[in-house]
Amino acid sequence: MIISSTTNARIKEVLLLQQKSQERRRQGLFPLEGQRELSHAAACGYRARTVFLCPEIAGADYRLPEALADAERIEVTPQVYARMAYREGTEGVLALMYGKAHGLHELRWQGAPLFVVIEGVEKPGNVGAILRSADAAGVSGVILADPRADLYNPNLIRSSIGSVFTVPVAVAPTEECIAFLKERGVCILTAQLQDSHLYYDTDMRRPTALVMGTEATGLTDAWRRAADAHIRIPMLGRLDSLNVSVSAAVLMYEAVRQRQTIPTFNA
Amino acid sequence: MIISSTTNARIKEVLLLQQKSQERRRQGLFPLEGQRELSHAAACGYRARTVFLCPEIAGADYRLPEALADAERIEVTPQVYARMAYREGTEGVLALMYGKAHGLHELRWQGAPLFVVIEGVEKPGNVGAILRSADAAGVSGVILADPRADLYNPNLIRSSIGSVFTVPVAVAPTEECIAFLKERGVCILTAQLQDSHLYYDTDMRRPTALVMGTEATGLTDAWRRAADAHIRIPMLGRLDSLNVSVSAAVLMYEAVRQRQTIPTFNA
Repeated sequence: MIISSTTNARIKEVLLLQQKSQERRRQGLFPLEGQRELSHAAACGYRARTVFLCPEIAGADYRLPEALADAERIEVTPQVYARMAYREGTEGVLALMYGKAHGLHELRWQGAPLFVVIEGVEKPGNVGAILRSADAAGVSGVILADPRADLYNPNLIRSSIGSVFTVPVAVAPTEECIAFLKERGVCILTAQLQDSHLYYDTDMRRPTALVMGTEATGLTDAWRRAADAHIRIPMLGRLDSLNVSVSAAVLMYEAVRQRQTIPTFNA
Repeated sequence: MIISSTTNARIKEVLLLQQKSQERRRQGLFPLEGQRELSHAAACGYRARTVFLCPEIAGADYRLPEALADAERIEVTPQVYARMAYREGTEGVLALMYGKAHGLHELRWQGAPLFVVIEGVEKPGNVGAILRSADAAGVSGVILADPRADLYNPNLIRSSIGSVFTVPVAVAPTEECIAFLKERGVCILTAQLQDSHLYYDTDMRRPTALVMGTEATGLTDAWRRAADAHIRIPMLGRLDSLNVSVSAAVLMYEAVRQRQTIPTFNA
C-alpha cells in the first residue's frame, strides 16, 4: 500500500493522534518518529500497529527493527511524510505504537529502590528531561503523580530521547502513590524549602523516593504530610530558582554518589 | 514620543537587534523584555539606551527601575508592542540595553574560585540553563570559550531567567582561557569519558574550573591536554546521555557539597 495524498484518512489519523491526548488514550496508540526512537521502543518491548515508511528519506539500507516486523506497513511519498512528521530529521519512518500499562504494581526492583516522583508537572519537556536523567542515574522507576502531561505527548517523547521507553514509568493519583510507597517501606523525601535538611545531609541509601512538585506551586499538602523528611538544594545565588529537571538530576545523582561511595548500614 | 506604526524605523531597529547577533555586537546594544528582567539587569548594573513602554499593557502602576530613569523613553501602542515582543507575557516593557565587557580580567572572586567553562556550546537554551544553575550554585563565574552562541541572544536571555545578568560571565578564545586559569593556579577538570575519574571522587575544594564541551563533539584537544584531571558522571542506564546543562548542574552541586561538608586541607 502506497499513500501519496496528504488528505488520506490514514494520514489524518496520525495527525489526530499527534495532537490529541484524549485520542491517544481512547485508541491506546501513540505516534513515534525516527529510526533510533523506533529501535529504543522495540528493544524495550513496545510493539507497532502500523509503520509508515518513506523509502526515499529512510534510505534503501534501512531495516525496521525485528520486533516491529509483524506491524502493518504503509509506504508514503516524501510529501506525505513531511506532512506527518512532527519534527525535522526523523529519517523517514513513523509508527503508531501500542501504549503500555503504567500501573504502580508494574514496577520491579532489586535491593533498595530509588524512585523519582513528579507531582503535577505540566510541561512535557520537563518530564522528558527528568526521564533522560533518570535513565542515566539508573533509577528503579519514575512515578508521575496526578500528571498534567500525557506520557506519550510528542514533546515529552522527543525531549526524553528514548528514556520514556527505557525507564520504568508508573502513573497514578497522589494518594495511591503514597500508599504504595508507605506499604513498601520506601522513605519519602520531599523537595521543599520549609523545615528542610540539605539534600546531601540526608541518607538516600535506604529505599528512597525523591518527590518534586512544579516550579510554580510546589508539592501538595498530601505529599508534605506523607514525607519522612523534607530536603532542599541550597540556593547560593540571587535568583532563588532551579529548573525542576535540574533539581531532580542533582538529587538523583546524590543518591548515586551515596550508594556507590558510602557503605550501607544494613548491607 | 508615541509610536503607533509597526513600520516605524525605531521599531525596525529593535527587530533587527533581536534577529542579528552581528548587529548587537556592532551597536553594543541588545533588546530586553519584561518587568522582572529589567529589574534584574538594572540591579546588576546594566543601563538602557531606550525604553519602549506600552502603558496599556504595563499597567498604570508600573514604575521603571530607578537605574534606568535616564534612558530615552518611547511610548508605543499595544499593536506596536505586540510586533516588537519576542515572547508572550512580557508585560509591556522592552529596552535596548548596553552590553557589558566580558573579558576574563573582569572576573573577581574571594577564596577558592569555582568556574564553569563551556566550550563551543551552540544552543542558547543550554547556555541559559547553565547560567541559571550557576546562579543557584553561587559559582565565581561562567567562562564561555569559543562560544557559538551570542551571550545576548534573546533565547539565551529568556532561558537564563535573569542569571545572564547576575552571574559573572567571561567570553574568550580557548587558549586565553587556559592561560588565564593556569596562571592563577586553578585546577582544570574536564568532563570526558576517556581516562577519567568519577566526579565525586575528585577534590573540588581547591580553585577549580569544571570544563564541559558540546553534547555532540565534546571538548577539543587543547582542553584535554590542559586538564589536571578528567572527570566523568557515571552512566547507569541504557542511553548513555545526559543533557549538557544537567551535567553542569550535577558537577557544580558536587563542588557545593564538598565545599560545605568536607573541611579543606589547606584551610
